[in-house]
Amino acid sequence: MEFIVDKDHFSRAISDVSRAVSLKTPFPILSGIKIVANNKGLILIGSNSDIFIERVIPLTMDGMQALEVYEAGSVVISAKYLSEIVKKLLDKIQFKVDEKQLVTIQSDSIITKLSGFSSGEYPSLPQIDEVNFVSISSSELIEIIKQTAFAASKSESRPVLTGVHMSFKENHLSCVATNSHRLALRELTMESNVTGSYNVPSTSLNELTKLMNSEPSVIRIFVTDNYLVFQSTNTSLFARLIEGNYPNVLGLLPTHSKTTITLKTQQLLMGIDRACLFSSEWKNNNVHLDIKDGTKIKISSTSSDIGKIEETQNIIAIEGETDLSISLDGSFLIDALKVIKEEEIRLSFGGSLRPILIEPIGNTSYLHLISPVRSY
Amino acid sequence: MEFIVDKDHFSRAISDVSRAVSLKTPFPILSGIKIVANNKGLILIGSNSDIFIERVIPLTMDGMQALEVYEAGSVVISAKYLSEIVKKLLDKIQFKVDEKQLVTIQSDSIITKLSGFSSGEYPSLPQIDEVNFVSISSSELIEIIKQTAFAASKSESRPVLTGVHMSFKENHLSCVATNSHRLALRELTMESNVTGSYNVPSTSLNELTKLMNSEPSVIRIFVTDNYLVFQSTNTSLFARLIEGNYPNVLGLLPTHSKTTITLKTQQLLMGIDRACLFSSEWKNNNVHLDIKDGTKIKISSTSSDIGKIEETQNIIAIEGETDLSISLDGSFLIDALKVIKEEEIRLSFGGSLRPILIEPIGNTSYLHLISPVRSY
Repeated sequence: MEFIVDKDHFSRAISDVSRAVSLKTPFPILSGIKIVANNKGLILIGSNSDIFIERVIPLTMDGMQALEVYEAGSVVISAKYLSEIVKKLLDKIQFKVDEKQLVTIQSDSIITKLSGFSSGEYPSLPQIDEVNFVSISSSELIEIIKQTAFAASKSESRPVLTGVHMSFKENHLSCVATNSHRLALRELTMESNVTGSYNVPSTSLNELTKLMNSEPSVIRIFVTDNYLVFQSTNTSLFARLIEGNYPNVLGLLPTHSKTTITLKTQQLLMGIDRACLFSSEWKNNNVHLDIKDGTKIKISSTSSDIGKIEETQNIIAIEGETDLSISLDGSFLIDALKVIKEEEIRLSFGGSLRPILIEPIGNTSYLHLISPVRSY
Repeated sequence: MEFIVDKDHFSRAISDVSRAVSLKTPFPILSGIKIVANNKGLILIGSNSDIFIERVIPLTMDGMQALEVYEAGSVVISAKYLSEIVKKLLDKIQFKVDEKQLVTIQSDSIITKLSGFSSGEYPSLPQIDEVNFVSISSSELIEIIKQTAFAASKSESRPVLTGVHMSFKENHLSCVATNSHRLALRELTMESNVTGSYNVPSTSLNELTKLMNSEPSVIRIFVTDNYLVFQSTNTSLFARLIEGNYPNVLGLLPTHSKTTITLKTQQLLMGIDRACLFSSEWKNNNVHLDIKDGTKIKISSTSSDIGKIEETQNIIAIEGETDLSISLDGSFLIDALKVIKEEEIRLSFGGSLRPILIEPIGNTSYLHLISPVRSY
């Protein structure tokens, strides 16, 4: 196996697939990157067994020669050392592997020798059925992930809740995540010849947003037995699905409310953020909301050890009862408000122990639900 | 005590003095910032008992009113909460303390109440003798600290070696730091009506460089019983001195050498940096230098587990013996090369077990010494 590759392309590909590589893996082979050279280009693969990231370097990129392959072959090489070395080399890199898997990496007068592993032991990627897929722009996909993935559970006690539940129907995609105390739901109208529902780990989706963030592109989503595959021109991410039935969360959405108020999104976000200064030292990040006379909302939090903070904000519009007190986990409300781009939001309350519904004004594709906490 | 202060000035002053505050202090009072209001302005003080940072906010700054004091007084308040709250408030901040040390911080409709401490328990600052001091530009002071402080010892086994030894003579300042394996020496010609030698903790000097980094200014250095005091217009840092006699390191400087070579500073730095990729997994960061035939220097390192890396660089000039092999801790050489601004450096070798002298070409004010390691 032998090739000469442009340093920048090689270095970027290594850094992309390294996202999948965990140094703490119980399988030594997975601490490496698999490199395959053939007459079409170079394929790099990194994996932590939950995700695979595959990156292709074709012979030419941006109209320039990026790669010359002299001898086809494959090897697995330590992701850590490869990435550190390549970053510090010069423009052109010669990469050679002998029959004992000894890798020689040369750039100008700099010669590095590293022991590689046989690529035969590396797990193989699931086969993609190239016929059925969904196309979505990377910016749209990143947006819907950012609006939902944070709401998934961090605890492994109910594994399905650590994922985002993605349901593809004809002309429609919906994404839901919940940790059973809060819920985010985002819907999207789109062409789809894939149907079915999949639980995708929120951590894998977060990796995907970082991986696909660099340039706007079209992402094709394929379904295989155990994986959802997200593919742009030269990069693919294979996300292993979480088995299990996702709870029917749509039944939780409240159908009517006692009080509905309209507030400025950013102003509320800053107010809750300030109230959370103390509440983080306090049980459940408790923040109290009090509506007074239908014109003002008081945001406050108290810690008997440290002190208290409070402020009032104007209510833009109110429907229903004009007095209300409710307590909630301020950090949940911050997470929800951060991903709402609309200037104003509507908060709907069904009573001090019923979930609070948060919706951007003028956008029906997104909603958020937060369970209140009992205040003391 | 009551005042109204501009948010930005207050926030910057809090963040400056907070540098000295450690959350892990055994003295609860030192987790706070002492605030004194009088008819001249506001004084903020933070300390970890090794250093005190004092910051003054005068009534007007940059020609604008920054502060109005309605009632003089003083209080100590949690550095952590004060800094987090003030950052998130609006333009003008009203600060009020009642006789029970309850602090009310108000900005627009946002009201925060925090418990303060009586300032009587706060340690007092050493008195400054306003007559004898040295003036130095902040950029020059920062440079000499950066060129020496890194070489000080990190181990407390010989406390004086954790400091930079600053010697003031008439017209002359010299700074030395060593961990007994490497040494940095920087000299400076300057007016001085202070004489004497002081061991200043390198950690305190590193804090000083961050504190004084924001804008060019003149720094006055005062000597008190146990402290060196560094003072710019509105900011003072009091560094507690390390007691003990500093070793006579000047006797260690080699007086003659077997081989002297000239190299490109940046190129050598990059080569050593590459060689250290593996050496960090290896004993003592061992990097080997081999001069061959007087024209080339080979830089290499080897780890039996991982692999090896080597490269050759051209020698610009050589005097003395033309063959030499020596091993050293590459990270020490990297530290030294990083703070040399000159394009070329001279390395002088007295033999494979004698210290290596590193000097920038065309600048006699700075030198560095590194002990070799036995190579295996």
